[in-house]
Amino acid sequence: MKSVIAVDAMGGDHGPTVTVPACLDFLDSHGEAQLLLVGLAQPLAEELARHRATSHPRIAIVPATEVVGMDEDIRTAIRTKRHSSMRVAINLVKEGRAQACVSAGNTGALMGTAKFVLKTLPGIDRPAICGVLPTRKGVVYVLDLGANADCTPDHLLQFAVMGSTLVEAVEERARPSVGLLNIGSEEIKGNDVVKRAAELLKASTLNFHGNVEGDDIYKGTTDVVVCDGFVGNVALKTSEGLAKMMGDFLKEEYTRGVFTRLAALLSLPVIKAFRRRLDHRRYNGATLLGLRGIVVKSHGSADRLAFATALERANSEVCHGLNDRIAAEIARLHELGVLAGTNRVVPTEAAA
Amino acid sequence: MKSVIAVDAMGGDHGPTVTVPACLDFLDSHGEAQLLLVGLAQPLAEELARHRATSHPRIAIVPATEVVGMDEDIRTAIRTKRHSSMRVAINLVKEGRAQACVSAGNTGALMGTAKFVLKTLPGIDRPAICGVLPTRKGVVYVLDLGANADCTPDHLLQFAVMGSTLVEAVEERARPSVGLLNIGSEEIKGNDVVKRAAELLKASTLNFHGNVEGDDIYKGTTDVVVCDGFVGNVALKTSEGLAKMMGDFLKEEYTRGVFTRLAALLSLPVIKAFRRRLDHRRYNGATLLGLRGIVVKSHGSADRLAFATALERANSEVCHGLNDRIAAEIARLHELGVLAGTNRVVPTEAAA
Repeated sequence: MKSVIAVDAMGGDHGPTVTVPACLDFLDSHGEAQLLLVGLAQPLAEELARHRATSHPRIAIVPATEVVGMDEDIRTAIRTKRHSSMRVAINLVKEGRAQACVSAGNTGALMGTAKFVLKTLPGIDRPAICGVLPTRKGVVYVLDLGANADCTPDHLLQFAVMGSTLVEAVEERARPSVGLLNIGSEEIKGNDVVKRAAELLKASTLNFHGNVEGDDIYKGTTDVVVCDGFVGNVALKTSEGLAKMMGDFLKEEYTRGVFTRLAALLSLPVIKAFRRRLDHRRYNGATLLGLRGIVVKSHGSADRLAFATALERANSEVCHGLNDRIAAEIARLHELGVLAGTNRVVPTEAAA
Repeated sequence: MKSVIAVDAMGGDHGPTVTVPACLDFLDSHGEAQLLLVGLAQPLAEELARHRATSHPRIAIVPATEVVGMDEDIRTAIRTKRHSSMRVAINLVKEGRAQACVSAGNTGALMGTAKFVLKTLPGIDRPAICGVLPTRKGVVYVLDLGANADCTPDHLLQFAVMGSTLVEAVEERARPSVGLLNIGSEEIKGNDVVKRAAELLKASTLNFHGNVEGDDIYKGTTDVVVCDGFVGNVALKTSEGLAKMMGDFLKEEYTRGVFTRLAALLSLPVIKAFRRRLDHRRYNGATLLGLRGIVVKSHGSADRLAFATALERANSEVCHGLNDRIAAEIARLHELGVLAGTNRVVPTEAAA
């Protein structure tokens, strides 16, 4: 299938020096895809020239005159930066000129702008950020990773529907299992929101596994793990911190002396294989689920490989018709009464 | 200082086969300490005999006729198992015969029984579970790790006071820094409870660092990290799951072939040093803070080394007069008006 993806080429810590070569790598391995590179015309043209891709047949430059800063306030981004590369890229999705948008820009501004421009899908109250993490058995999709600090049981149910549909579409797995992130102590077994969410999930048509605990994420107990954005963000950041510390400790021990350096040299294939299995670049790209358009957020510090992975994720979601499937599933569950009580599935007029 | 510690010798996955030798190890390195071993008389006597310690001058057996199961309901434990090793051990603290109690029994039952028997310190609404984790710079104390799924801003402030006093006492560090666990996205910056807790912490006399994110835990950004029990439990369990997965991946890669096994052999000192730095047994023992008595919870699966670490933690807290210091600090902050609005500091009659 032919896909057209709008790329916020200015976003992230590195801008075009990373996004442009990543785009070229992506196009090399995806012969049908087209990219709309959005950004300041001059740096983009220069970067393309550096890679001898000035007249790449499947790249078009869409000029933007501003860039949203990595620490910029959401309101500033939405109200005053109407010509930013991020905003223009999202507009392209809104106008139907692109089927998806990828940005390494700041998460808050991207989610805020995407919500403002694209609006949410019918039946979805709140978009969520869905990321992919490695597990013993493969991968797990976790949402929400930080868009919604306070959630109702209905929100968590909607996240579960979206996450489940995402895995069904992209991983081509029938009836993915869904776990509800909770705590194990018998004493309390979670807060009220989680308890009521569990009841909703049990009554739904989803393949609900039941409660899972933090360690189940990496055990790969379920295909999808659902939680509020506060808990999901803490779990993700804590994991990043621990993985980094463990990696650093290993490095420190291997570089302590002559003998350990020799051991390190001999262990190089092992260490490489180990690092590859955990390489966050291979899991880069979190999907902003629940919008009227596909938006993928790359890590701000993404390098060439990582950004290309985010492009692949967006492409895969386009090719698998992700949003139509989510909309259809939400509508179906509304008809069944499973999602009753949340927003009705009536398309609203969205004014950008 | 002479300390007397009551040990629930039956608790945990392994019971006396682990707790008894751990107790002997602990006594070997703490010449002043005395232990009251609580449990079924027969297995305890047998285990002591196996280690030729039947008449150890600093061990006394206190018989109990029941054991609380690892999955037992809290209410069952409190109402029907009045003669359990856990209950009797806590009673010894209540009666002043021991200054602390250590148990590897189930967390919910231990917290429930301890609250019921000992009651909370004046001025403390809810006890919290405070654990120690390794960081790049040393250790960090994190609370609550799972006792309170729903917390108010006042609870989080009380946790901060208790955690700070614990570090001040046990680590002998003046004015420990306190971080409030939050999420980074500019979009929301946390939920209402956390926002209001930050205001209370700013207005307190504590050394409040400000918000921290999940990765700050392992960076060692602050001495204490405060969060509600839901978030803390997820962060802890997620960390356990990730560390286990990373360890397993490393092992798998090292045992893949002949060459990698050779590399593993040469890397043995490195791997040992690496594992030692992360060895959870060296950080075993979470303190149930805020009770009228010192109670330390060991991991259920603790081995001899790990259980001895938990005993050391309890001993250190006794020797540093932890609970008197917490009570004094809470009273001081009440007088200053910092803790106004929470329970008044009026000792209540506690009926066990």
